[in-house]
Amino acid sequence: METNNRRDFLKKAALTGASALVAPSLFAANDEGRRESSPADMAGNLESRLIVPKNNGLKITGTFLDEISHDIPHQNWGEKEWDRDFQYMKRIGIDTVIMIRSGYRKFMTYPSPYLLKKGCYMPSVDLVDMYLRLAEKYKMKFYFGLYDSGRYWDTGDLSWEIEDNKYVIDEVWKMYGEKYKSFGGWYISGEISRATKGAIDAFHSMGKQCKDVSNGLPTFISPWIDGKKAIMGTDKLTKEDAVSVQQHEKEWNEIFDGIHDVVDACAFQDGHIDYDELDEFFTVNKKLADKYGMKCWTNAETLDRDMLIRFLPIKFDKLRMKLEAAKRAGYDKAITFEFSHFMSPQSAYLQAGHLYDRYREYFEIK
Amino acid sequence: METNNRRDFLKKAALTGASALVAPSLFAANDEGRRESSPADMAGNLESRLIVPKNNGLKITGTFLDEISHDIPHQNWGEKEWDRDFQYMKRIGIDTVIMIRSGYRKFMTYPSPYLLKKGCYMPSVDLVDMYLRLAEKYKMKFYFGLYDSGRYWDTGDLSWEIEDNKYVIDEVWKMYGEKYKSFGGWYISGEISRATKGAIDAFHSMGKQCKDVSNGLPTFISPWIDGKKAIMGTDKLTKEDAVSVQQHEKEWNEIFDGIHDVVDACAFQDGHIDYDELDEFFTVNKKLADKYGMKCWTNAETLDRDMLIRFLPIKFDKLRMKLEAAKRAGYDKAITFEFSHFMSPQSAYLQAGHLYDRYREYFEIK
Amino acid sequence: METNNRRDFLKKAALTGASALVAPSLFAANDEGRRESSPADMAGNLESRLIVPKNNGLKITGTFLDEISHDIPHQNWGEKEWDRDFQYMKRIGIDTVIMIRSGYRKFMTYPSPYLLKKGCYMPSVDLVDMYLRLAEKYKMKFYFGLYDSGRYWDTGDLSWEIEDNKYVIDEVWKMYGEKYKSFGGWYISGEISRATKGAIDAFHSMGKQCKDVSNGLPTFISPWIDGKKAIMGTDKLTKEDAVSVQQHEKEWNEIFDGIHDVVDACAFQDGHIDYDELDEFFTVNKKLADKYGMKCWTNAETLDRDMLIRFLPIKFDKLRMKLEAAKRAGYDKAITFEFSHFMSPQSAYLQAGHLYDRYREYFEIK
Repeated sequence: METNNRRDFLKKAALTGASALVAPSLFAANDEGRRESSPADMAGNLESRLIVPKNNGLKITGTFLDEISHDIPHQNWGEKEWDRDFQYMKRIGIDTVIMIRSGYRKFMTYPSPYLLKKGCYMPSVDLVDMYLRLAEKYKMKFYFGLYDSGRYWDTGDLSWEIEDNKYVIDEVWKMYGEKYKSFGGWYISGEISRATKGAIDAFHSMGKQCKDVSNGLPTFISPWIDGKKAIMGTDKLTKEDAVSVQQHEKEWNEIFDGIHDVVDACAFQDGHIDYDELDEFFTVNKKLADKYGMKCWTNAETLDRDMLIRFLPIKFDKLRMKLEAAKRAGYDKAITFEFSHFMSPQSAYLQAGHLYDRYREYFEIK
Repeated sequence: METNNRRDFLKKAALTGASALVAPSLFAANDEGRRESSPADMAGNLESRLIVPKNNGLKITGTFLDEISHDIPHQNWGEKEWDRDFQYMKRIGIDTVIMIRSGYRKFMTYPSPYLLKKGCYMPSVDLVDMYLRLAEKYKMKFYFGLYDSGRYWDTGDLSWEIEDNKYVIDEVWKMYGEKYKSFGGWYISGEISRATKGAIDAFHSMGKQCKDVSNGLPTFISPWIDGKKAIMGTDKLTKEDAVSVQQHEKEWNEIFDGIHDVVDACAFQDGHIDYDELDEFFTVNKKLADKYGMKCWTNAETLDRDMLIRFLPIKFDKLRMKLEAAKRAGYDKAITFEFSHFMSPQSAYLQAGHLYDRYREYFEIK
Repeated sequence: METNNRRDFLKKAALTGASALVAPSLFAANDEGRRESSPADMAGNLESRLIVPKNNGLKITGTFLDEISHDIPHQNWGEKEWDRDFQYMKRIGIDTVIMIRSGYRKFMTYPSPYLLKKGCYMPSVDLVDMYLRLAEKYKMKFYFGLYDSGRYWDTGDLSWEIEDNKYVIDEVWKMYGEKYKSFGGWYISGEISRATKGAIDAFHSMGKQCKDVSNGLPTFISPWIDGKKAIMGTDKLTKEDAVSVQQHEKEWNEIFDGIHDVVDACAFQDGHIDYDELDEFFTVNKKLADKYGMKCWTNAETLDRDMLIRFLPIKFDKLRMKLEAAKRAGYDKAITFEFSHFMSPQSAYLQAGHLYDRYREYFEIK
């Protein structure tokens, strides 16, 4: 029987202490065990030899929860898998989870009476409730992402979002905010960049309502920088007409000026500019945040924007460079989009589990 | 040694009965065991909390077998993996397997004397024979999918398919039909939609030959609805000029009228229309099938047509909505394209195994 | 407890000797164990039944190492995973590893003093050193792939590559070549096809320098054939204006004539032509190599170029046909692009592990 042969081999291997032995029986063991960790594996105790200083970046302490799916395929996890994922997050120091949106077009994360009446689909699980329970269990803060009707993406007009979210914010606070102490804040989910029509009014209006209803719980936004990799809806990997850092500063100065009284933090997505542009943009972002008394976060994307398959987990060195730049710039916090697909040991993308291991290795997390 | 540490930890964890303990040693266990199920996993017994009625859809009892590959990457399974997959299918009640096509252009699933002479490539395994053996072993019915020369895709003309399949149907019945009692029917594999030139003649001609040679074994087709997501060969996820339900009814009434004497069932693909269009289209489909004495099946696609990666497994709630609509419409049977990539616990896409678990949870299958 | 139930079931299953039993408890075992090999698995000992002669192709004895990533997503392996991968390679007879490039644009595989000064990014691990150590450990030859600045891809001009590699070749030989006896040769990494401007001069210049500095260590190139699947940068899977075999011969005769004194082998990529064109092109390639006293290798690609997802592992029968053609043509050696993503049992693409199994089955490798 295969299993017995394998055990016999392992015993022999242990006795002889073979170190680089390459024998069919070793491989039978490795092969059979290719989805488990095998004690016969001679590579088992090897450590990578880093030639850069360890622990030299800003640690990730928050992650988006990508429900419901927009452009990232769904993992079909149940509560069992989500519970385990929160454990994996906790292990590396994540204390904040942000549900990226509470609904997208007709799909919802919770049974919203308001949205059901508008024709949205009943979900089989109340994800908001589940995340809030898991956040309590693992002592994390949960941020609620607002509803995205999709009309902004279709029309460029944010006024629909304001209207729908008036109802969503109210009902969510009543359904969950007063019940769970893990309800820690709001994510204003409109993904804009510079010069989005009506952005200041929309952010201000939604931010104010969130704060008013919840006794001032913190709010944040996570816009993208209109850099060379901002190529959504095209076939290309880069574009020519990227924003200059001067123009970026000018435009975001105006936006921050208009929203800083109701938006506490801004976490620019870090994936649309090149690695040697990070310091320049990050310095400006920090300066602007400081000027307006806002917190400066980074959204350290863990998906790789440079590949033909959109999207799989990022190469560790790219993430490292981004987190090192965030530390150099004195950023306040790093969050990521997102842990469960791109960094989790149980992700359907196995590269994610290896990213998790590389991350722990670099930050010396057992 | 890592393994011993883990065992020690597990013993301690069991003794202390820790429930939400987050300790490095727990994670060492989880991490080592991330490709196996770990007894130390505190999330192990959690059940998802469903807020919709369970078991409220039409169960999937048939699946395509996607050999040979057309646009879905091959999994490179041997007989061992296929046998195991039939066990996984059987567990959720699948009693029908349909080989999607017996050949595609120069690739074949069996050593066809006719097609070899025409320059097709010899396959290393006779998949038809293997599937028929497995179907017998697991008491399922096997449907044979006809040969697809690819010329219809290139030219829009189905007459090549009729010509080649004259030979294929004859030789296949002699090679396998008379030998295996699991040979249960025929799938007429031309994937057409409305108004495909020559579709009625082609379906009728091939359907009649299948029935004549096999003493009337059942035949079926699985066309697509020319809906908003019928975007093959484009970059988009949706299109503007989708068919109306009225036009759909008019055109398929004509087609069913011309083929119902030799085609026993029609399983429209359910993935090209939106979720809130399901009832409307399904009602028409059932009415038409009833009118012509045909069985009304649904091809409940388990691939997700809404994502950038084409294709990964569908989000469970989408599948649920489609199966619930099929039940409401009184459909006769649900089959899927297809189990082995998009729903199997051993699929290379790990999301598929989670879809399998969600499906079992919803349908209360142990 | 689930685990105990499973063990109980296994005992019972062993006692009763059930062979095709389909019971919930069996599935509980299978399900729990879906990422490990389960002794309860009744499919465990099944062998595929091949209907073609086994062991009838040229075996793969070399592989590229795809660091650093260009268009294939990164797996984020540490030294532990790389060590294990070399074991998997060794098992099937791989004796040659080729680092595909030492740097690509600003990313590097080793801390090059020259490239650091030019603004390239410091890598966290010295991959050249690691690969050379692993090659020594497993008694393989390591080929060093030259630096690719990306400017050739942008401009079509190879002169930048010559300039940068003057420095790279020198420093690499000093840093590693004199230290590691596994340093076995050079891969001139410019991926050209016919009529690339300046290709002869570039290959000759770089090949000569590699040989001069290293006392004549072997060099090779791996160009693509400008066949019907050479569709880089387009949406299509095939193109109309593929090169004819006559034109291919004429142009490569000229190129070989200009480089054969400093390039020892040519490994044409085999993925850009159709399976029934293999013999014709391979015959010409071998004839040309013989004429100029070069070795004729094949780069047997293990990625599938015919699918919508670019790229996942190839279907085994396609690889088999290519290796059989290489044997028929009398080729000297088969290498692959590449083992670790597309053929390794620990690849993030699980289809790769099954390809490994099919390959071993065919070549009768235990």
